[in-house]
Amino acid sequence: MEIDYSNIKVIGFDADDTLWVNETYFRDAEAEFGKLLSQFETINQIDQELFKMELKNLPLYGYGIKGFVLSMVEMALEISNNTVSNNTIKAILDIGKDMINKPVELLDGVESVLKTLSESYRLIVITKGDLLDQERKLKQSGLLDYFHHIEVVSDKKEENYSNLLNHLDIKPSEFLMVGNSLKSDVLPLIHIKAQAIHVPFHTTWVHEQVTAQETNGKAYKTVQKLSDLLQFLK
Amino acid sequence: MEIDYSNIKVIGFDADDTLWVNETYFRDAEAEFGKLLSQFETINQIDQELFKMELKNLPLYGYGIKGFVLSMVEMALEISNNTVSNNTIKAILDIGKDMINKPVELLDGVESVLKTLSESYRLIVITKGDLLDQERKLKQSGLLDYFHHIEVVSDKKEENYSNLLNHLDIKPSEFLMVGNSLKSDVLPLIHIKAQAIHVPFHTTWVHEQVTAQETNGKAYKTVQKLSDLLQFLK
Repeated sequence: MEIDYSNIKVIGFDADDTLWVNETYFRDAEAEFGKLLSQFETINQIDQELFKMELKNLPLYGYGIKGFVLSMVEMALEISNNTVSNNTIKAILDIGKDMINKPVELLDGVESVLKTLSESYRLIVITKGDLLDQERKLKQSGLLDYFHHIEVVSDKKEENYSNLLNHLDIKPSEFLMVGNSLKSDVLPLIHIKAQAIHVPFHTTWVHEQVTAQETNGKAYKTVQKLSDLLQFLK
Repeated sequence: MEIDYSNIKVIGFDADDTLWVNETYFRDAEAEFGKLLSQFETINQIDQELFKMELKNLPLYGYGIKGFVLSMVEMALEISNNTVSNNTIKAILDIGKDMINKPVELLDGVESVLKTLSESYRLIVITKGDLLDQERKLKQSGLLDYFHHIEVVSDKKEENYSNLLNHLDIKPSEFLMVGNSLKSDVLPLIHIKAQAIHVPFHTTWVHEQVTAQETNGKAYKTVQKLSDLLQFLK
């Protein structure tokens, strides 16, 4: 099926793992967390339990590093049966601070793609996670000038997108979202009759994964890297 | 000096401690934290050290409950010389979860004031803190319908206000901010030539306090409760 992008006037970009590296740092943090607690459980078990704890706390803490760190601390207490050392707790807090302090590492070709597209489209950023972290990363990225609007949202469900497009006076038929998460950046847009292009990142958080059934028959394109966008949009 | 509000078209409201109770919960949490660690230090000393820790971590964690909890955990390790029990760490995490789960308690007269003012002005909310927490409180508050726009900002400095007013196409001369913090809700507005009305809450976080010198000669009104606004604005 050929997809027609000729109506598109506004392109929304996800930020984490679409414009810059992010999930890799969470994977690294989980590996470090596993090592810190390896005396209590297998790395695999720790990984699974931490994921469950994150999901359990998600309604309270939302997305982002601070909630992740709080979940790691809680999991350390639980998995050690309340015998984890203060030094390990301190090490967990430090993992979080290191994550927050990571320099922004742009993905390949991001800047030139944005530069080209910004000549023909209004570009916006729609990202979830911690407001302060995302603002800091955007500032550090040097990409701010390419965007007409930045929106940090608490979640990326259909309702969040509908409200935002409505608020920004953008018709769904004129909007294209670009991002690495089928669950957050692609499917909700198809459901509200906007368009989406999927640019997978090499690693995806389990929580963001979707089943083949959910994507079946949905009209979106997948490209391997951001610069492939320029084949359809210019 | 009489202040003229006849140009005002848009009124911005702070949320925490202006529309609903907030700081009280932080004070309660600090008292509980002090009790948990009272074997290590005097309550007064714990209070002061926690405040220092919060300030130190503010550039990393920003405002909000999650950063506050992370600072409490770090302070517990430090003040106990790494001898604090796992049970105490767990109790600190629970203080945070309780704070997040607190029901929204509107301040006196808020709803009727908003109802009246919304008939003559565009009302917006400008609040800092955690995006998810603030969205949840706004939803729970039942006040959403009175507001044209909600903005959760990472800080409330002149620059944040200027950018926001610019983005929303509001002239500073037509904007009035209402809030409980001189530092965050009043002085930055006066500095960018907008207006502000101060509605003090009975308790103010030390970080939000300002000196007499900073307020000297600044043209803003202080009222005792939100409903007093209706004396000047209708």
